[in-house]
Amino acid sequence: MATNETPIETYITGHQEQFLEDLKAWLRIPSISTLPEHKADVTHAAEYAVGQLQRIGMSEATLIPTNGHPLVYSEWLKAPGKPTLLIYGHYDVQPVDPIELWESAPFDPTIRNGNIYARGSSDDKGQVMVIFKALETLMEVNDTLPINIKVLLEGEEEAGGESIAHYITTTPERLGCDAAFICDTHMPAADMPALITGLRGIIYTEVEVQGATRDLHSGSYGGVAPNPLHSLAIIISRLKDEDGHIHIPGLYDKVRKPHPQEQEFWEKDPLHINEAYLREMGVSQLSGELEYPPLERTGGRPTLEVHGISGGFIGEGAKTVIPAVAKAKISLRLPPDLKSQEVFTLFEKTVHEVAPAGVTVKVINVHGGEGIIVSPDSAPIRAASAALEEVYGKPPVFLREGGSIPIAALFDAVLHVPVVLMGFGLPDDNLHAPNEKYALSQFFNGIRTVASFVQKLAQK
Amino acid sequence: MATNETPIETYITGHQEQFLEDLKAWLRIPSISTLPEHKADVTHAAEYAVGQLQRIGMSEATLIPTNGHPLVYSEWLKAPGKPTLLIYGHYDVQPVDPIELWESAPFDPTIRNGNIYARGSSDDKGQVMVIFKALETLMEVNDTLPINIKVLLEGEEEAGGESIAHYITTTPERLGCDAAFICDTHMPAADMPALITGLRGIIYTEVEVQGATRDLHSGSYGGVAPNPLHSLAIIISRLKDEDGHIHIPGLYDKVRKPHPQEQEFWEKDPLHINEAYLREMGVSQLSGELEYPPLERTGGRPTLEVHGISGGFIGEGAKTVIPAVAKAKISLRLPPDLKSQEVFTLFEKTVHEVAPAGVTVKVINVHGGEGIIVSPDSAPIRAASAALEEVYGKPPVFLREGGSIPIAALFDAVLHVPVVLMGFGLPDDNLHAPNEKYALSQFFNGIRTVASFVQKLAQK
Repeated sequence: MATNETPIETYITGHQEQFLEDLKAWLRIPSISTLPEHKADVTHAAEYAVGQLQRIGMSEATLIPTNGHPLVYSEWLKAPGKPTLLIYGHYDVQPVDPIELWESAPFDPTIRNGNIYARGSSDDKGQVMVIFKALETLMEVNDTLPINIKVLLEGEEEAGGESIAHYITTTPERLGCDAAFICDTHMPAADMPALITGLRGIIYTEVEVQGATRDLHSGSYGGVAPNPLHSLAIIISRLKDEDGHIHIPGLYDKVRKPHPQEQEFWEKDPLHINEAYLREMGVSQLSGELEYPPLERTGGRPTLEVHGISGGFIGEGAKTVIPAVAKAKISLRLPPDLKSQEVFTLFEKTVHEVAPAGVTVKVINVHGGEGIIVSPDSAPIRAASAALEEVYGKPPVFLREGGSIPIAALFDAVLHVPVVLMGFGLPDDNLHAPNEKYALSQFFNGIRTVASFVQKLAQK
Repeated sequence: MATNETPIETYITGHQEQFLEDLKAWLRIPSISTLPEHKADVTHAAEYAVGQLQRIGMSEATLIPTNGHPLVYSEWLKAPGKPTLLIYGHYDVQPVDPIELWESAPFDPTIRNGNIYARGSSDDKGQVMVIFKALETLMEVNDTLPINIKVLLEGEEEAGGESIAHYITTTPERLGCDAAFICDTHMPAADMPALITGLRGIIYTEVEVQGATRDLHSGSYGGVAPNPLHSLAIIISRLKDEDGHIHIPGLYDKVRKPHPQEQEFWEKDPLHINEAYLREMGVSQLSGELEYPPLERTGGRPTLEVHGISGGFIGEGAKTVIPAVAKAKISLRLPPDLKSQEVFTLFEKTVHEVAPAGVTVKVINVHGGEGIIVSPDSAPIRAASAALEEVYGKPPVFLREGGSIPIAALFDAVLHVPVVLMGFGLPDDNLHAPNEKYALSQFFNGIRTVASFVQKLAQK
């Protein structure tokens, strides 16, 4: 490799330690956006990003205050006649509980077996650091960038993303570009590069059930008092059956048939119908709508999940309480043609219809976001595809991802430009779970790929 | 009243302040038996009881060490030829969460509107203090007691009561007596004295559902991963329907038809078919098996309640996790002919049968206890009945109580003596809930009644 190594490769190889140190420093900041006590940490993480962007030599790098956590905006527009790429990422992270299951502390980034373990390592600080380091490499090697670059980072991706949505819809002119690039997705395997052609939308709700006005003793009141936990269990069991079918009238009406090529890939599915997939999850069989292939279930079908149920007593020992109130956090993932607000309305109506008598039910819309389908047939996607093939030695597969990146739908709807969804996470990165990690090989190959992608965009 | 006031009444009236101060001091000790961090407090509360018994002038008052929390044993046997009464109570209390709903701190006893508010005020320290002060009154007035007295208190009533069960079954000779008296029940209203003729048994279980071996992100895995919270909801909805019917095959086979007199009282029911009952619970309608009268539902029918569900995320904000594990605390209340171990076996079998595929289910037997039916037709019960009539001005009603006092079944089974279940709690005492209270009028009338009861026993 040494003989025909490019200056880009030389720079990347020579700065691996520094790149990792910069990532670790960022990961040490516990920027949990949903927990008010971490508000200062979130801002601190934003300031750290500004520092990185200034160091690259961007013309501008600044915090944009919002009603919530600040945005980070940066630009370098000194390539007249060349395309402008708007790059998105987020610097906030998920909560860390259950903390006791972490093998190393979530904000003490630790390298084990070729991975860096920390909350945010894969989702999304590690992937944003890929971008910083790709831009730094290009700038250091060439003293310039091959295209115009705008960077927009948010600190509320894990908390509904309201501030960036407001910013984009009210300030679209500042974000004018020829393509958008979102680095917040994953590849099916380290040897299977991928571009994402679809993302699911989401509605996140809280269902609150009130029984009596106070907690009651099950000895005295068991048999006459409503039990909100039991009512919630009945509601949940009626919303989705054990075969994964969601019983919300009208929900499936708008689910679009997949493109024949997608359908074919989903049915062949080199990824999921195998022992390794079951082993990775630690289950003996898959769940959900077994009549659809797994890739369609996670990418093309609506799904409903309960994330937590509160109320009553869950401490050590026994307490025979009938709680006054119980709550469930429930979300739906939505393929692109299902609009979040419409689905919330259907969901709310159904919850009220299936609720047992004797309790009062409230449904809260915590947040929502739309899905997206992108065409593989555009210059930016072709450039990304070529960059991936150059670094990984094979062309990418085109996948839909089950996760929700509402920002992608917003870029699509407001900026009207192709959206490149290219990320370097892996399926076992433990997103939103204990022991989140990012593979070091993916981190460095990501830097190589993004550097190549940006160069290829200049050639159009 | 002053003209023909008895010395007993004079003593009680003259010592109200002191009686309350002694109760408050006991209530300040947070003797939560299920929380390991309160172990020392539980022992401290036991020692306080010993101090009270010594002060009365009992011949012996001592702690009996166990594998768990200590027992308190005390005796005064200087009335040869007179009956011996064994008195039971418990000095441990329930946990206090949700702490934020308490109007005054749970361990800072506070008097408002003729009630004393504190955890344990009604269940059961207040009721045990009734006994201490009745005995103290008799001893102070007469310099002796009219009958032989044994007192046995436990510190694990809210935690399964294993130690006292072990002690009673292994040391029945020490507890030899002519009657047992348990002061841990309530009256339907302050003007409706009651004796309890039946108590339900209980099984308390934990159902644990394991899906994947780690928490998963619902974006990537929603549609293929089992969701243990959803599986639990399905299990719970299949165990009991919204009309209160429990679907555990065989459960109802052994439920005995009520005695015709009970049946008649349940159907007349002066207590429950009224607005006040609904208002007291804060509901618009009663729940459960509507084809049975409320008194039968709470006293004579098995019931099943969920007390808490853990797993996943219940914090502020949104986390889209599919948890690896979810657990539910579920108990059944059992009329006397349903034996706890047999019912646990049926329960465990049913949970496994109704569990959805794809998850692993474990059922844990946390604790159990048997119910009891007592005959109103015995000398001790007649004495208690006469004492209640003397103080309250009307004869007591005979009721079954829905709660479980496993010790009553043990006394019945091991000591073979009549068990008097007479307590002075009220239905709105908020047992096991925030703002637990005990009515001061019930506290002092309880002292009067127990003093009279003990005197009447001597007359047999």
